[in-house]
Amino acid sequence: MYVNTRPEMPEGVKTLPARYYTDPAHFQLEMERIHFDMWLCAGRTEQLSAPGRYFLRQVGNASVVVLAGEDGRVSAFHNVCRHRGTRLCNADEGQLPGRIQCPYHAWTYGLDGRLVSAPHMEKVAGFAEADYPLQPVATAIWDGHVFINLSDRPRPYSEHLAALPAKFEPWGMADLRLVEHRVYELKANWKLIIQNYSECLHCPIVHPLLHRQSHYMSGDNEPPQPTYLGGRMDLREGVKTLTMDGQTTRAYLPGLGPDDQRHVYYYAILPNLLLNLHPDYMLTFTMWPRAVDRTDVICEWHFHPDQIARSDFDPQDAIEFWDLTNRQDWELSQFAQEGISSRGYRPGPYSNREELLRGLDRFVLERTGAGAASRTPSPLRPQP
Amino acid sequence: MYVNTRPEMPEGVKTLPARYYTDPAHFQLEMERIHFDMWLCAGRTEQLSAPGRYFLRQVGNASVVVLAGEDGRVSAFHNVCRHRGTRLCNADEGQLPGRIQCPYHAWTYGLDGRLVSAPHMEKVAGFAEADYPLQPVATAIWDGHVFINLSDRPRPYSEHLAALPAKFEPWGMADLRLVEHRVYELKANWKLIIQNYSECLHCPIVHPLLHRQSHYMSGDNEPPQPTYLGGRMDLREGVKTLTMDGQTTRAYLPGLGPDDQRHVYYYAILPNLLLNLHPDYMLTFTMWPRAVDRTDVICEWHFHPDQIARSDFDPQDAIEFWDLTNRQDWELSQFAQEGISSRGYRPGPYSNREELLRGLDRFVLERTGAGAASRTPSPLRPQP
Amino acid sequence: MYVNTRPEMPEGVKTLPARYYTDPAHFQLEMERIHFDMWLCAGRTEQLSAPGRYFLRQVGNASVVVLAGEDGRVSAFHNVCRHRGTRLCNADEGQLPGRIQCPYHAWTYGLDGRLVSAPHMEKVAGFAEADYPLQPVATAIWDGHVFINLSDRPRPYSEHLAALPAKFEPWGMADLRLVEHRVYELKANWKLIIQNYSECLHCPIVHPLLHRQSHYMSGDNEPPQPTYLGGRMDLREGVKTLTMDGQTTRAYLPGLGPDDQRHVYYYAILPNLLLNLHPDYMLTFTMWPRAVDRTDVICEWHFHPDQIARSDFDPQDAIEFWDLTNRQDWELSQFAQEGISSRGYRPGPYSNREELLRGLDRFVLERTGAGAASRTPSPLRPQP
Ligand code: FES
Ligand code: FES
Ligand code: FES
Repeated sequence: MYVNTRPEMPEGVKTLPARYYTDPAHFQLEMERIHFDMWLCAGRTEQLSAPGRYFLRQVGNASVVVLAGEDGRVSAFHNVCRHRGTRLCNADEGQLPGRIQCPYHAWTYGLDGRLVSAPHMEKVAGFAEADYPLQPVATAIWDGHVFINLSDRPRPYSEHLAALPAKFEPWGMADLRLVEHRVYELKANWKLIIQNYSECLHCPIVHPLLHRQSHYMSGDNEPPQPTYLGGRMDLREGVKTLTMDGQTTRAYLPGLGPDDQRHVYYYAILPNLLLNLHPDYMLTFTMWPRAVDRTDVICEWHFHPDQIARSDFDPQDAIEFWDLTNRQDWELSQFAQEGISSRGYRPGPYSNREELLRGLDRFVLERTGAGAASRTPSPLRPQP
Repeated sequence: MYVNTRPEMPEGVKTLPARYYTDPAHFQLEMERIHFDMWLCAGRTEQLSAPGRYFLRQVGNASVVVLAGEDGRVSAFHNVCRHRGTRLCNADEGQLPGRIQCPYHAWTYGLDGRLVSAPHMEKVAGFAEADYPLQPVATAIWDGHVFINLSDRPRPYSEHLAALPAKFEPWGMADLRLVEHRVYELKANWKLIIQNYSECLHCPIVHPLLHRQSHYMSGDNEPPQPTYLGGRMDLREGVKTLTMDGQTTRAYLPGLGPDDQRHVYYYAILPNLLLNLHPDYMLTFTMWPRAVDRTDVICEWHFHPDQIARSDFDPQDAIEFWDLTNRQDWELSQFAQEGISSRGYRPGPYSNREELLRGLDRFVLERTGAGAASRTPSPLRPQP
Repeated sequence: MYVNTRPEMPEGVKTLPARYYTDPAHFQLEMERIHFDMWLCAGRTEQLSAPGRYFLRQVGNASVVVLAGEDGRVSAFHNVCRHRGTRLCNADEGQLPGRIQCPYHAWTYGLDGRLVSAPHMEKVAGFAEADYPLQPVATAIWDGHVFINLSDRPRPYSEHLAALPAKFEPWGMADLRLVEHRVYELKANWKLIIQNYSECLHCPIVHPLLHRQSHYMSGDNEPPQPTYLGGRMDLREGVKTLTMDGQTTRAYLPGLGPDDQRHVYYYAILPNLLLNLHPDYMLTFTMWPRAVDRTDVICEWHFHPDQIARSDFDPQDAIEFWDLTNRQDWELSQFAQEGISSRGYRPGPYSNREELLRGLDRFVLERTGAGAASRTPSPLRPQP
């Protein structure tokens, strides 16, 4: 039924050396060159539904507060007081009373980050409130997704998304509402999670339920893009969406045409968002690297408000399906971390159906400046 | 009522760069230049009330046994056997039977540290017991406080205390007795605890109970001294001492004049003792750095024996008051550690009421040889 | 009764500097030069009693699978898939179904390590299964003990064992069967465990029960050998073996002559096997360094099948005796680790009854290339 029509993988293309997955110094380099430079998906606009609503995100050693301003617009700041550096907000999310007040000496900032009150600074030569605003973090919105960028000179957001806004317009993502939120703490490098996400060769072995509903060879990928890697898979005949039994009473998302009703889209928007678009719901994963071998993953299920409003709405079939599939994937990603950390690891060859993984490796090599030389290490020499 | 009469803070005086609070290598440097060089308060003579009584203290990687010798005099030694290096005493405190015997092969030392028995060493060429005493640690006593010094060439103890013995003679600290002992494990650098201790700008916000009894602007500091930083605050009218309600049935300490009965003294004796003198009791904190971001604090409440002997003696009002206040301070110190460890931290400006903090920074900069250049880092450049 | 007839210890022979027990970099050097270079005892052939039986061993960062092949012969491989490096076997021990299949994408290896199936690799230029076998780990068998060697060019196994096979032939070790298995997690460097094992000066103090059955001065050591350190001790008159009361209803091992029935042999076969041979049972310890200050010890009790078959067989007297003795030794080894890690540690003098410890130090110095210069550090200079 399905044949492997993808182009051949050239000779000598191998997985990366172990240090890319085990060396804390390389991890720091990746954070600087990738996570502190690129746009990261932080959450959803519905979490910032009124002035003063906020949530925190930890990116490497950066604590960031993402909030809705007086005018309801989203902005973000480093969550650090300009007086003696105290962390300002200390709950994961909440409602600010129109200002941000430091818990230590009550320096007070507006929701726009301006320092509006700094008690007892009147006898400091040359002090001016205007010189000590909260340090800003760039933000952008795409169809309900909130992105942040910690770079001093963020690249244009439109370059980051490229063709995606047009492509995914039919799903009406901005209209969807968060129904379930689960956090997974993985003992694996963040890249292994994207790798796992980017091929379905493992599906018949690891995810028999998924494979029963969507054939693992049905995948059709876009060529790797500079900022995202993705493709789509077919739903098998008679399968309406991905749930425990492939059925659902939920309606399709209103904007979808017949072709999109028969597919699930899987996009890794580098470096931290995995976006699964089903005919009737959206699943998002945001990945937060904690160490070279640890990553927290926030997984959220989003549905259309018309369906949520129905008296018979029950999202459990989709939640259970993905929670089960996630756990299967996390276990494998952790086995991969263990093996790559082991003395016996040597870079191995990719198949032609792992072209997105090769795309990820190239992205990492270009970003971390390790160059082409280390891309195809000799299988004969031990890798550190 | 109270006005800010302290001198203006010059322009450009800022808090230290983040590495002073986050870099393990800088922490080691501080330990070498500060904690392994200076006099540290280890405990009280009443804990060493009979020959052979001992307690242990851990200073960085040094385990020290502090003990009362045969003649009752206090001395201290490295808690390490001279044979194969085994830790000698392994309980936090106790009673030695007139000697220190290694648990491994029974090398035995007198309470004066001399090696008195080394079984089976008779067939070792050139071996002499006299060559293997326990390695001594210098000790000194001040009014009941036991100090130790791990330097090979300790600076004179009198220089360390300077004017303090005369100043605090009226409190008769040697006569006081330990009534309560609490240990707090903080996730904060030791300097942040001293900083928190050295200003009361945070008091109205964080310690409403304290502020109700002692106005936060009433503080009057000595100029920073080379080895200590301190000052005093007024008790408000009608307030007798710092307790939950500001009242007490305890008598004032017998040596105090009327002025000292109306004040609480707060002295940070660098680098590890915080000394609170109230009209009717003494509170001591000794701080034991465990890592760049961890410090154990031992807090002890000491009262006059005449009051302890009273049938209605109840120290709970003072214990509760300070335990509550401590917990408020520890939380803030931990928020400060978190914020300073965050990517968004930049050195910030001190107010003119934080002159003791500036004194602490100068002390650290002088000791760690980082020099004046890094004292006023540019607000425009990111700090590592 | 027993006199110290061993040769005198020359002047100036001291224990090693602290860094040999505390420096993670030195630990890595030891792992490279010692544990990754030498033969390590991994277990017993009876654990590999049928084709496909396997167990895992972790040597530093190397995960190794030791298994019985199709022909029942023992072999070992790095437990890492040649595709994307996933850890292959993830249970500590078990039964393989005639092949090793990667849990990720089902690359499948024979029990001889050959890659027999690599799905979806047909469109990879130049790919050949023959190029991707599991990476082999050398194995050898000695009288029921399974050894592994992770070196690319293992030294001959016969050199490693030297005179031991002939010496211990009478005990018939291959015939013995494992009855009890206990794992101890020690906070101590692996060398301290061998040191503790290699002298009995501590026995009268620490092991009164052992000393009651076997006089601590009765030890008679071989001169230190390049790959092992050992000796034997006498059982006291009336004592039959080492148990809680020195008695047993078990018969002597069938091959033992009268002299060997009156002794217990203690051999440290470097770097990871401690072998205790009693008249009626064998005790083995294999040591697995986890960090410079952590070692896991697997302790196993082995008895003769004729005794195990008896209706009144009860190994508890031997298990309890050694479990008690082990715990006493582990505590001391941990106190030694603590003391040597302490700032006050200085290398100390060995007695003439610690010649095996000096032999271990020389072994380590030769292997780690630290040279003779650091062998007798000056007692006057602090050691890092
Ligand atoms: S640290 Fe924030 S107000 Fe002082
Ligand atoms: S280590 Fe202390 S007596 Fe041997
Ligand atoms: S990693 Fe083992 S088959 Fe892919």
